[in-house]
Amino acid sequence: MPNPTAAMLVIGDEILSGRTHDTNTRYLAGVLTEAGIDLREARVVSDNAAAIIGAVQTLAARYDHVFTSGGIGPTHDDITADAVAQAMGRKIDVREDAREILAAHYKKVGIELNAARLRMARIPDGARLIDNPVSAAPGFVLGNVHVMAGVPGIFKAMVASVVPALTGGAPLLSRSMDVDRGEGDIAAPLAELAARFPALSFGSYPYQRQGAYGTNVVARGQDAGMLDAALAEMQDIFG
Amino acid sequence: MPNPTAAMLVIGDEILSGRTHDTNTRYLAGVLTEAGIDLREARVVSDNAAAIIGAVQTLAARYDHVFTSGGIGPTHDDITADAVAQAMGRKIDVREDAREILAAHYKKVGIELNAARLRMARIPDGARLIDNPVSAAPGFVLGNVHVMAGVPGIFKAMVASVVPALTGGAPLLSRSMDVDRGEGDIAAPLAELAARFPALSFGSYPYQRQGAYGTNVVARGQDAGMLDAALAEMQDIFG
Repeated sequence: MPNPTAAMLVIGDEILSGRTHDTNTRYLAGVLTEAGIDLREARVVSDNAAAIIGAVQTLAARYDHVFTSGGIGPTHDDITADAVAQAMGRKIDVREDAREILAAHYKKVGIELNAARLRMARIPDGARLIDNPVSAAPGFVLGNVHVMAGVPGIFKAMVASVVPALTGGAPLLSRSMDVDRGEGDIAAPLAELAARFPALSFGSYPYQRQGAYGTNVVARGQDAGMLDAALAEMQDIFG
Repeated sequence: MPNPTAAMLVIGDEILSGRTHDTNTRYLAGVLTEAGIDLREARVVSDNAAAIIGAVQTLAARYDHVFTSGGIGPTHDDITADAVAQAMGRKIDVREDAREILAAHYKKVGIELNAARLRMARIPDGARLIDNPVSAAPGFVLGNVHVMAGVPGIFKAMVASVVPALTGGAPLLSRSMDVDRGEGDIAAPLAELAARFPALSFGSYPYQRQGAYGTNVVARGQDAGMLDAALAEMQDIFG
């Protein structure tokens, strides 16, 4: 059975202006790879309703799972929840279960749950809340779209709570070795090796260490025995 | 008049698997912001022809400028040039001007221009080459699509040569030389040189080749005669 597929949608002007460096995509990529879910595409769009709606509709139709990060805070430009609701054809308003979570949190920390913060309780009809152990304001799952926070610490915590439940296919395994030659020298034998193992995918990643050139060759797949066989061939060829 | 718009397309399985962190998007975002060009969207797709073609066609139709990074190296999974040619309806083959650049470079560094490396001279019909002062293999511009390398140092050098021409300025010309010293050693004389040629811009790009450190020093500007004069001074200082 092929692995489930996924896409990441990062939302925020601050990423596209270069002000903030997106680290959530790489983090999610690593978690999904371990979980046996293939991240096929990532997009970054601005805090613009039409851009978010268009991307959500396209990605939700094309992939098994969509993960978003950003745009669910208390300020006027945090429009992700409303845009996702519109993209999926659902109504949205302050929802009582989310309001209670925020009220309990802000009471505990002694901060007023004002109108701005209450925006974070806007949850589309039919959505399931995603736990936020860091700062309370929940994310949500609507259909196959997982809406999560942009702040990296909160994003990671939300990923930890949703990805295990998705129970992907068999986890993707890998075998790799360092070859002390440049990519151009190993390209031909690597292509032959890849042709002999069509069920595996091969990548090559050049590096320089202590002034020495080399290439890290990686085989990825679901079958440990086949990967071991490929690694043995790699070692014969490049060792 | 509204700012021109742009999109970034990052190509590579290694980004989507989490193995490699994309830093080129943020770098480009900063450069475009300074240049008054609005980066509206960024996408990451895998080394898959259909995915690259689809993204290139969508983004090239939607934005004034598209920038790609990755997939123009010598290995079997480097398919960006062919995919972009297909997306834009152009033929592609090894092109003589690109082959000559590679041949001169590999002759100088004493490495064979084998079949794998010759793949890097595949350039679509009608494309204009983008200078690669770091490792020779050129990028190219086809229509409004700028195809550049994924290695961050090379990507930056290519961005420096293409972005100024997008903002209404005359295309930038360049002269460069390799200096077998580190950036820290050449910084002071390079700053003095830059002060004597205020109409030119100077950049330095560190490299390692066969275990040797060095810096590629580049002068950019619109006046060929002034660039030749600056190169002559560079050769006096660093030669």
